[in-house]
Amino acid sequence: MSSSLSSSAPASGSQKKHKVAIVGSGNWGSAIARIAGQNTQRHSDIFEREVQMYVFEEDYKGKPLSQVINETHENPKYLPGCKLPENVVANPSPVDAVKDATMLVFVLPHQFIRSVCKQLKGKIHPDAHAISMIKGVQVKDGKISIFADVIQEALGVSCSALSGANIANEVAQDKFSETTIGHRADDKGRENAELFFKLFDTPTFKVGIIEDVAGVSLCGALKNVVAIAAGFTDGLGWGDNAKAAVMRIGLMEMKRFSEEFFEGIKPETFTETSAGVADLITTCLGGRNRKCAEAFVKTGKPFDQLEKELLNGQKLQGTETAREVHQLLEARGKVDDYPLFKAVYSIAYEGIDAHDLTSRL
Amino acid sequence: MSSSLSSSAPASGSQKKHKVAIVGSGNWGSAIARIAGQNTQRHSDIFEREVQMYVFEEDYKGKPLSQVINETHENPKYLPGCKLPENVVANPSPVDAVKDATMLVFVLPHQFIRSVCKQLKGKIHPDAHAISMIKGVQVKDGKISIFADVIQEALGVSCSALSGANIANEVAQDKFSETTIGHRADDKGRENAELFFKLFDTPTFKVGIIEDVAGVSLCGALKNVVAIAAGFTDGLGWGDNAKAAVMRIGLMEMKRFSEEFFEGIKPETFTETSAGVADLITTCLGGRNRKCAEAFVKTGKPFDQLEKELLNGQKLQGTETAREVHQLLEARGKVDDYPLFKAVYSIAYEGIDAHDLTSRL
Repeated sequence: MSSSLSSSAPASGSQKKHKVAIVGSGNWGSAIARIAGQNTQRHSDIFEREVQMYVFEEDYKGKPLSQVINETHENPKYLPGCKLPENVVANPSPVDAVKDATMLVFVLPHQFIRSVCKQLKGKIHPDAHAISMIKGVQVKDGKISIFADVIQEALGVSCSALSGANIANEVAQDKFSETTIGHRADDKGRENAELFFKLFDTPTFKVGIIEDVAGVSLCGALKNVVAIAAGFTDGLGWGDNAKAAVMRIGLMEMKRFSEEFFEGIKPETFTETSAGVADLITTCLGGRNRKCAEAFVKTGKPFDQLEKELLNGQKLQGTETAREVHQLLEARGKVDDYPLFKAVYSIAYEGIDAHDLTSRL
Repeated sequence: MSSSLSSSAPASGSQKKHKVAIVGSGNWGSAIARIAGQNTQRHSDIFEREVQMYVFEEDYKGKPLSQVINETHENPKYLPGCKLPENVVANPSPVDAVKDATMLVFVLPHQFIRSVCKQLKGKIHPDAHAISMIKGVQVKDGKISIFADVIQEALGVSCSALSGANIANEVAQDKFSETTIGHRADDKGRENAELFFKLFDTPTFKVGIIEDVAGVSLCGALKNVVAIAAGFTDGLGWGDNAKAAVMRIGLMEMKRFSEEFFEGIKPETFTETSAGVADLITTCLGGRNRKCAEAFVKTGKPFDQLEKELLNGQKLQGTETAREVHQLLEARGKVDDYPLFKAVYSIAYEGIDAHDLTSRL
């Protein structure tokens, strides 16, 4: 990064420090709030110490979860066993949590994005920077959108995206990992990326930056479709050659799909960054999509049943994204251009035998 | 591939068919001889039916191995349990095996290449095509060479390279996999790749082609260094994020190293082909380099002891390649430009603690 951080103080007063709010407090939200809380202390010249964290209020053993978090400095429901810094403050009101915040981190399940944005509209700092850590895409009326764009349009703020080979529990234990911020091409986008770099980069959580908000977002969504295919090969007992082949073919379809439907995609986002190839590897080695797809082949049970049995309340994203991608490709008459995506959809939704996976590639 | 195969009949007579010789008969040599034997039958318009296979003669239960292979159509020593087509003929004489052959497949451990080439010099068909499946590089007097170049120079034939995510036993069982042929930029190089494509491509062994003989060769050698690093992370129990990060960083160093020391490297050989990213994945998931490196961290035993205990006579290539790469980088004053390669060397040879792996990246 060539430009200096001195230019990126809040526009409302050059001496003011940035105030951070995390919108979301699940497994990944809590892990990233922990890092943000550490780094606002480490970079006290740039950031206000306190980090607000919006918590969707629910009951935890007879107490409100937000209260439990503030009393114990731990999120026992979604990140048990991991202490949060005391400057991370849980707040059950999204509007109150983002008050005066100049940096907004969106890290909540995608089905809640629209309703939260509706609540926040008009109530956020006019020069705020936002970043989306939301996986998934939105397909509607034959159009596909990333959530960084959904947030940017809903709130009128510059929104980047962060994604990478980041299993939350490993990050929360300070095990080494990398991640990628994809930002927009304008000055505000670059400033945004520099600020979030400062907020998140640590010696064991290394942040890379690339000017490609759509590519980073799409990597985070589409890798889950490939992980379903990788899980099929595991279930079939096809070995490491076949699994690696499916991952390679999947990575190429992810890249090609993104180039076809979005502007300004950088191929190296897919082939060279943590958000791309590295996250694909992590997701295909151990993730929940892989696991359910393996069980799908081995047990013959449908995915919705496996989701309930194996994921402990978490959602299976790969099959849902496969369906959305298929819907888009069908609307555009391009289904056959993406044989791996097509095979995943056909096996998951149309009863095609998983043994046919590679004969379709 | 745009050009037609009709131009690629042997130059010595346009109606003559190509005669194939496999030079080598280990685990991978036997697996690839099986495919070649099937495909010379399938494409009987292009190839002579018989495939000669040079076998380094050794005793197998009181009989010469070549005789056992020809009697049982199986290589019980290196690929037990897998039938070879009857048109694959074992031959203990390399000179006799390559007689009149117009297509030569070199698939033997790199330490034997020079002596075999010396024996073959002047005794091969003047218009023969060769392909190298040899892993590793040769470093001498501050210079690095790939074995496709060593063969091409020693024998005066056009030599391509083949590498990919190809665990031999899985290929021998017709489990799905992909591979990559890297060829030279001239017409003879393209003709070479088309012919070897015909010799090897099957519905479960999909051959890709790229104009990059050095890149494909270097992928096959350098991935083993990265697999050592990946094995260290396994031994340390650092999880999937760290392993994926090390693999990504390693892939980038492989590419950068190749671009620095060779002409005509295509970046996509590393990031998009089976020889590149896919083979790296396979090798870091299950290979012997990964396995020994994991044991190195867990047991504290030196690598030469682990090689004897764990590899059943096979050689550990990653540490040897790490040493050769280090030797070259040292001669060129570039050691610090490749922190992952440096860390692998330092941990394997200089007693540095494996826990320091990522602090050096």
